[in-house]
Amino acid sequence: MRYKCIVSYDGTLFHGFQTQKIGLRTVQTELEDVLLIITKKKTKIYGAGRTDSMVHAYGQVFHFDSDIIMKDENMRNAINSRLPRDIYITKVEKVLDTFHSRFSAKSKTYEYRIDLGKYDPLKNNYCWFYKYYLDLDKMIDASKVLIGEHDFKSFTKNNTLENTIRTIHDIKFTIDQTKVNILFKGNGFMHNMVRIIVAMLVEVGKGRITKEDLIEILNAKNRKLCPKTAPANGLYLMEVEY
Amino acid sequence: MRYKCIVSYDGTLFHGFQTQKIGLRTVQTELEDVLLIITKKKTKIYGAGRTDSMVHAYGQVFHFDSDIIMKDENMRNAINSRLPRDIYITKVEKVLDTFHSRFSAKSKTYEYRIDLGKYDPLKNNYCWFYKYYLDLDKMIDASKVLIGEHDFKSFTKNNTLENTIRTIHDIKFTIDQTKVNILFKGNGFMHNMVRIIVAMLVEVGKGRITKEDLIEILNAKNRKLCPKTAPANGLYLMEVEY
Repeated sequence: MRYKCIVSYDGTLFHGFQTQKIGLRTVQTELEDVLLIITKKKTKIYGAGRTDSMVHAYGQVFHFDSDIIMKDENMRNAINSRLPRDIYITKVEKVLDTFHSRFSAKSKTYEYRIDLGKYDPLKNNYCWFYKYYLDLDKMIDASKVLIGEHDFKSFTKNNTLENTIRTIHDIKFTIDQTKVNILFKGNGFMHNMVRIIVAMLVEVGKGRITKEDLIEILNAKNRKLCPKTAPANGLYLMEVEY
Repeated sequence: MRYKCIVSYDGTLFHGFQTQKIGLRTVQTELEDVLLIITKKKTKIYGAGRTDSMVHAYGQVFHFDSDIIMKDENMRNAINSRLPRDIYITKVEKVLDTFHSRFSAKSKTYEYRIDLGKYDPLKNNYCWFYKYYLDLDKMIDASKVLIGEHDFKSFTKNNTLENTIRTIHDIKFTIDQTKVNILFKGNGFMHNMVRIIVAMLVEVGKGRITKEDLIEILNAKNRKLCPKTAPANGLYLMEVEY
């Protein structure tokens, strides 16, 4: 039986989603520890994608296979009741064996949260507090350059990838007082891609580079032109679409 | 020169405000470590009151003495630039030597945050997620019993205190969708007093006890009648008034 799960987590105290060296706390390890108790068998989970240390999720997806047959809601409760308080399963559903959390994914939605307001130490893990002026109109205008199918080689940390062509379906800004949320929907995002794009858009907002510079950087396919990466704690994996 | 400081902090990763055994991270230790660097002298700080592990603050106050004379704003920046991101000084001002953060305090304001909505693992450290129905009208009505000068012996963890008489000036509920914030203003609160009161008001909201029971419990001056304590992570020290 294959189970698909949607999971939220606070990335603050995790070394990312994926299992790392022994002793490092990850979301995957916590989930597999709980599944071992419930299914009484070593059970591997498959995530839709990795998230880095400090990155949060409201809609990460994973699947696992088990002989145990339980009602979806009961499986959800069984897992949640054993999880630490910073991980929470919002949905469990049985799926066909042909479903794969990663390979079946059609698109993903990330959100990046910037706060231009007064620094608040209680919110620091949940956004990028940016204390200088940003010209948001310029950022919104420049972001349109990135929408569509492009070679995003300039915007990834991973320099061994063969195919760096991705499609960004949409970049949407939502502004609420001092809060600037930028939603990215695309068919796939490479390592650090959203955070590098955000850092470059912030450069535009500061007036350090223009929309035209951003076009050049995109065309140059050279990561050296994007030396900055926005902090991990402002990033949220919101949804994986199938 | 005596400096008065107002400080905000996220209590999640602290073993409370006050210095504990060596090796335990506290707000006081972090602040004194920074003041040692700035003043080049061991500098003790005096807090308006302790807060427990996991308890947050938006308006904790402390003072310290130093030979170093700096503009208030410069002192603030000097401290903030060296503090970890979960502590932040919002105000520094020079005060007379007769000012004492604790003994000069006239009243304190705490807020307790309950959330009756869907569990969100990213907000768990900042409120008490309560998943059962609460009759808020009954809670508001019962809370009035506690306003005024009373012997709050039933509502403190500390059973060695001689004087357990305190005055609660006001208890105010603010309800915003699923969020219930309860503001307590009083001339002083004993150890766990706010959290014990909140736990008892929740008992009223659940229908387990009545307003009349609460009056009896108050009059009984017996902590055994208040066996519960609301979780620390929902509590905020909001202001110290002088």
